[in-house]
Amino acid sequence: MRTIHSEKHRLRAPQTELSGGRLVRPFECPERVEHILSRIAQTGLGPVEPPVAHGLGPARAIHAPDYLDFLATVWERWRAAGHEGEAIPTVWPSRRMGRRGAPQAIDGALGWYALAGETAISSGTWEAAQAAADVAVTAADLVLGGARSAFALCRPPGHHAAQDMYGGYCFLNNAAIAAQRMREAGAERVALLDVDFHHGNGTQAIFEDRADVLFLSLHGDPAQEFPHFLGGADETGVGAGEGFTVNYPLPPGTGYAAWAEALEDALGRVAAFGADALIVSLGVDTFRGDPISSFRLESDDFADYGRRIARPGLPTLFVMEGGYAVAEIGVNVVNVLTGFEGS
Amino acid sequence: MRTIHSEKHRLRAPQTELSGGRLVRPFECPERVEHILSRIAQTGLGPVEPPVAHGLGPARAIHAPDYLDFLATVWERWRAAGHEGEAIPTVWPSRRMGRRGAPQAIDGALGWYALAGETAISSGTWEAAQAAADVAVTAADLVLGGARSAFALCRPPGHHAAQDMYGGYCFLNNAAIAAQRMREAGAERVALLDVDFHHGNGTQAIFEDRADVLFLSLHGDPAQEFPHFLGGADETGVGAGEGFTVNYPLPPGTGYAAWAEALEDALGRVAAFGADALIVSLGVDTFRGDPISSFRLESDDFADYGRRIARPGLPTLFVMEGGYAVAEIGVNVVNVLTGFEGS
Ligand SMILES: [Zn+2]
Ligand SMILES: [Zn+2]
Repeated sequence: MRTIHSEKHRLRAPQTELSGGRLVRPFECPERVEHILSRIAQTGLGPVEPPVAHGLGPARAIHAPDYLDFLATVWERWRAAGHEGEAIPTVWPSRRMGRRGAPQAIDGALGWYALAGETAISSGTWEAAQAAADVAVTAADLVLGGARSAFALCRPPGHHAAQDMYGGYCFLNNAAIAAQRMREAGAERVALLDVDFHHGNGTQAIFEDRADVLFLSLHGDPAQEFPHFLGGADETGVGAGEGFTVNYPLPPGTGYAAWAEALEDALGRVAAFGADALIVSLGVDTFRGDPISSFRLESDDFADYGRRIARPGLPTLFVMEGGYAVAEIGVNVVNVLTGFEGS
Repeated sequence: MRTIHSEKHRLRAPQTELSGGRLVRPFECPERVEHILSRIAQTGLGPVEPPVAHGLGPARAIHAPDYLDFLATVWERWRAAGHEGEAIPTVWPSRRMGRRGAPQAIDGALGWYALAGETAISSGTWEAAQAAADVAVTAADLVLGGARSAFALCRPPGHHAAQDMYGGYCFLNNAAIAAQRMREAGAERVALLDVDFHHGNGTQAIFEDRADVLFLSLHGDPAQEFPHFLGGADETGVGAGEGFTVNYPLPPGTGYAAWAEALEDALGRVAAFGADALIVSLGVDTFRGDPISSFRLESDDFADYGRRIARPGLPTLFVMEGGYAVAEIGVNVVNVLTGFEGS
């Protein structure tokens, strides 16, 4: 399997994350990618190649123009406002407060476009996010070109980013951008399976009113787990998209048996949907050692579910999302990919 | 003028405020009250008395039951979750994400009930907030009992707190609780004039659909200033309350001449409304030296506007809100009160 990867991910290197009322070193850190690359080399998974630059076109097919303008300028505006730390919102349009639109001042605009505050914006964030989108599009093009599978080693991740909101370490929704790329290249039906520990709220929001992209997510119950405000089993799509969103919220402590049962149900729905291609939002924070998650998958389980995902025989694009047990992230990610290949 | 004050304000003593991407010592600090008390003593404004305990009844007339339960338990739940810092939300129901209601886990519930993140919750916050509501109710009762005026030296402040949201240093809306107390005691029409630098979004939200409480606010334009998402001149009330919300958003750098012009317009509307009583949400962060605000009032201007507020001759309750130029807060607050008395 070929891996697409950009060195520019290193430009995303914030120093602070708001966690438990303190500013800590971010869990979503550059070393994550280094461990995955090492393991790819060690296992001989396949070549690692740079992305083709596509400009903002593919992102514009998913994200709102004002949001992209915000991302392109937020760091400069934040610094110009005289703030000494990284950009973290302190006020937002909570519930009934969203009537007025994006405020002019950067402190207000930051809250308008944020859905979470752990994610500090720093110098280089925008460049890294654009490179991650290029990685996803380039890998999607490999699959569209006939490859059985490809791995988009995106960083920053994407699945929490909605049309016009960032958060949960995500800015551009790499998997959604790839799905739209496949649709525009002629895939009539794309299934997007999100196996990250956290609900893919951004991806759901982007496709909830569409019947051409089936979104399925296995994740920690939002009553207990981030992002808390989307991800219920009762969210099944909107309008023309009714029935094309499928959520599997699972309780804290879920082990592989229960998780794999949900996966089998999801794969059955992918088959019934008649997907032309499959995109996997691949987060490995389901691992039992993950510092911010609560499922209990072992490293071998990742290989097992890679095999299961291969079974429908669909052209498959893996897009990297979360996973914060840094020392084990390489093994767990590559276990999925080699499991898929060896099936 | 009699002042009502509770020593319990000192229980509200958080160590952290999220500001400019850093955790700093909170601007809303206990010393604020000490400076005001000193100046009251120095000027002989009048006696300072403790509040009468009223329990949660008056707060229940304004705030949602689930919100009060949240405030009563949040610190204990936050600590039980193992967090080491003070309680600061990291995820919230931004714009389209408010469908599911309050999450079970405290990290989610915190974001559900927050409208801003600068305000850390710490041990003693709930006790102090309850005492501040008692202060407001006790002072309201003085006015209801025939006093020309009274000063509720509330801390924490209240005007950003909505029915079921905290933020901007506010938890219970002391001024709104006092207004409701007056209504229930027979005042048919209560005018609530908010002269704090920041828009009184909580008070507006509480009364926006009612015609019995006229809400007027002079404040920094929300396009530029906190709380950013309410406070436009086009917000004039809802349903039966249409016409009973009046906002005067003013640009950064506004000096006293322009400010006083807005005040005169507001006082004209109070007279036309036929108010039985006036409540002033008294924030002095309009002062030119305020560290988080951008108006340019001088200390003498506070005395001048105290005189203007006295002119309609209404029974008047002053309720303390913001003001963060700590060394000058006593002079500025007492200037308003002595200006009022000496008029
Ligand atoms: Zn995750
Ligand atoms: Zn204020």
